[in-house]
Amino acid sequence: MVDIATRVHNHNWKIDPIVRSLIDTDFYKLLMCQSIFRNKRDTRVTFSLINRTKSIRLAELIDEGELREQLDHVRSLSLSRGESTWLRGNTFYGKRQMFRPDFMEWFETLKLPPYHLEKRDGQYELTFEGAWPEVMLWEIPALAVLMELRSRAVTKDMGKFELEVLYARAMSRVWEKVEKLRQLDGLRLADFGTRRRHSFLWQDWCVQAMLEGLGTAFTGTSNCRIAMRRDIEAIGTNAHELPMVYAALAEDDAALARAPYNVLSDWHEEHDGNLRVILPDTYGTESFLNNAPDWLAGWTGIRVDSGDPATGAEAAIRWWQERGEDPRDKLVIFSDGLDVDKIIKLHHQFAGRVKVSFGWGTLLTNDFRGLTRDDSLAPFSLVCKAISANGRPTVKLSDNPNKAMGPEDEIARYKRVFGIGEQAAIDVLV
Amino acid sequence: MVDIATRVHNHNWKIDPIVRSLIDTDFYKLLMCQSIFRNKRDTRVTFSLINRTKSIRLAELIDEGELREQLDHVRSLSLSRGESTWLRGNTFYGKRQMFRPDFMEWFETLKLPPYHLEKRDGQYELTFEGAWPEVMLWEIPALAVLMELRSRAVTKDMGKFELEVLYARAMSRVWEKVEKLRQLDGLRLADFGTRRRHSFLWQDWCVQAMLEGLGTAFTGTSNCRIAMRRDIEAIGTNAHELPMVYAALAEDDAALARAPYNVLSDWHEEHDGNLRVILPDTYGTESFLNNAPDWLAGWTGIRVDSGDPATGAEAAIRWWQERGEDPRDKLVIFSDGLDVDKIIKLHHQFAGRVKVSFGWGTLLTNDFRGLTRDDSLAPFSLVCKAISANGRPTVKLSDNPNKAMGPEDEIARYKRVFGIGEQAAIDVLV
Repeated sequence: MVDIATRVHNHNWKIDPIVRSLIDTDFYKLLMCQSIFRNKRDTRVTFSLINRTKSIRLAELIDEGELREQLDHVRSLSLSRGESTWLRGNTFYGKRQMFRPDFMEWFETLKLPPYHLEKRDGQYELTFEGAWPEVMLWEIPALAVLMELRSRAVTKDMGKFELEVLYARAMSRVWEKVEKLRQLDGLRLADFGTRRRHSFLWQDWCVQAMLEGLGTAFTGTSNCRIAMRRDIEAIGTNAHELPMVYAALAEDDAALARAPYNVLSDWHEEHDGNLRVILPDTYGTESFLNNAPDWLAGWTGIRVDSGDPATGAEAAIRWWQERGEDPRDKLVIFSDGLDVDKIIKLHHQFAGRVKVSFGWGTLLTNDFRGLTRDDSLAPFSLVCKAISANGRPTVKLSDNPNKAMGPEDEIARYKRVFGIGEQAAIDVLV
Repeated sequence: MVDIATRVHNHNWKIDPIVRSLIDTDFYKLLMCQSIFRNKRDTRVTFSLINRTKSIRLAELIDEGELREQLDHVRSLSLSRGESTWLRGNTFYGKRQMFRPDFMEWFETLKLPPYHLEKRDGQYELTFEGAWPEVMLWEIPALAVLMELRSRAVTKDMGKFELEVLYARAMSRVWEKVEKLRQLDGLRLADFGTRRRHSFLWQDWCVQAMLEGLGTAFTGTSNCRIAMRRDIEAIGTNAHELPMVYAALAEDDAALARAPYNVLSDWHEEHDGNLRVILPDTYGTESFLNNAPDWLAGWTGIRVDSGDPATGAEAAIRWWQERGEDPRDKLVIFSDGLDVDKIIKLHHQFAGRVKVSFGWGTLLTNDFRGLTRDDSLAPFSLVCKAISANGRPTVKLSDNPNKAMGPEDEIARYKRVFGIGEQAAIDVLV
């Protein structure tokens, strides 16, 4: 077992890398990458870091030199032989050879493209420009680097025992959550916490704790490196960047309205079973479901990632019923801002009515709330998003206007095209 | 830093020794041993294990073979060269050569005498018979072995993460105590927790946590090995076994009445300054102080180890005032059943009126209350006492009748000789 406090205390901050592997990333990034590599490999996109929690002035907390060292280190990484073997040889979601040989050959030679870094108003402007399948792989390591450099900045002046007790308290908290969760009959829960983790070692600890504490109720982790190391399932399907970039590329309003379905049509060709999971909220869940082609109702499930989760799940259930599908055969994955109480509530509300599953992120791998003075280790809302594609801005509406992004006139246009009216705003904690 | 959970999980229970050194014992045992070696070395005494918490059936929890292996290991120990150097060369209580050359020569060749072990009614009968300076050194290792074998018995089937969380919770608890205690101005506190520690590694952790968390308010540890390893003060003076054996040896009632003062007269010749600390409660504090010779009022302080601690301290203050001493120059050491709230209360009540100091034992080094199912790691009241000397039974009255020991007729005689009336009974938790 790793003694996290000692490792943190003894860290040679300058040298010790935060991201140690190209597959220290979310599984769905690799699935999407393969899909993009096949369908849109020449699309030029820009990803950008966005700190939604303005009160945390990252450029004042984190040394620019250290940040550059960590990012440069990520650029030096390439797929190791063992990682390649794991990706090629493993069974994911019951399927062998999930990753096709042409994709693997490309991935084996990949190094991440350059980054652009500037300081502005106490924040870092960090952007990545280039071919979509390459720059999209920056998202997770960039977030992980910034999150962990922030953790290191806060912990670097703490004493050895103060640190050990910090981690002791955080461990006790995770375990209390485990003890509550294991009361739930039929729980299915995975770790989705790579992007906002306190640190790599901490995420790895949390995963192992879940594994011991929850047994088969813990279905796996989104993190490929940890899945490989701990010999557990890698979990994930697809994300907003697909419809966002497809939509940005649309030539007119009619093409824009079709874009989200085109994404899933491409996906439908490539995947089946539990990988056929709809993420309906990019431009409003209600509109998406109302206008969806019938074949989509045959998909295995839906992921609820913004807005009120119970409302989203009820909408999906009604939609399935209207299309003649039995919701009890369908999977609902909740993945937005979860913590134990919300998980318990949603489980009780939906277990039996649908197959319920949880993708638990930030408050699994970064719940250090209240554990330091000034709450200086509390998680915050950092994202890294595709902001443009082939020179056109991307737009996200979401089911929560606080998660919307894009230029105002484009947001207005998208709202018109997708028929979005008033939306209820929900605070974005993490 | 030691990863306690991993060490516990990986323990090769059969082999890993609990007591690793002859000086893994309380400092006052060595001081008393030297005094006994000088004044009463041929006295034959019997020490016996006494489990005051009958509900904990040690013989059912702890394997006899393992217990014998651990006790045999203690018998194989002798003073190492480094330990001898530390005892000979160190300054204790500001004094060089605390341990005289003749004592050190004897101690360097010492191995502990045989033990006698039997099972009876779910308990172990464990006794040690022989020359007083030899068998008295069994007390602390015997207690530490039994306490830790009990901890090991409870933890041996726990999972790796369950264990890590167990220690995480215990660490968080210790640290909460540290955080409360460091609010106290002028606190002076030492670790007295060797005999009832959860384990050696845990005591060592607690000491280091106090050191980092309390700084100079933490004055040291009673454990010589830990004091040596952590380069801090070894703390302790004398204990009940001296008056108990001296009293048992008294030929008649008049000699019995003088015995407790004879102990301190011998001590007076050997030690000065902060080592002149009266332990007045063996046969009742009030009677002891009333009948004390005047020279005792000149001693540096008093240790309050049973009964209501505030009552004992007030009695001492009155006594000093009656004898023309200024209590503000005097040391009061509280050492009975302390936990944070009691420490805070006593500190506020007596700081400024006397020099206050705390010897914190079981609830520092073994507060695992409520951390396991059935509270199976809660500390309990195990002692190892001199029960006879030269064939005569020893007696202890204490300021708490629940801590009294000895044959009933002898207790009655002692009560008569020392003029003890009604005493208030206080539950003995630890």
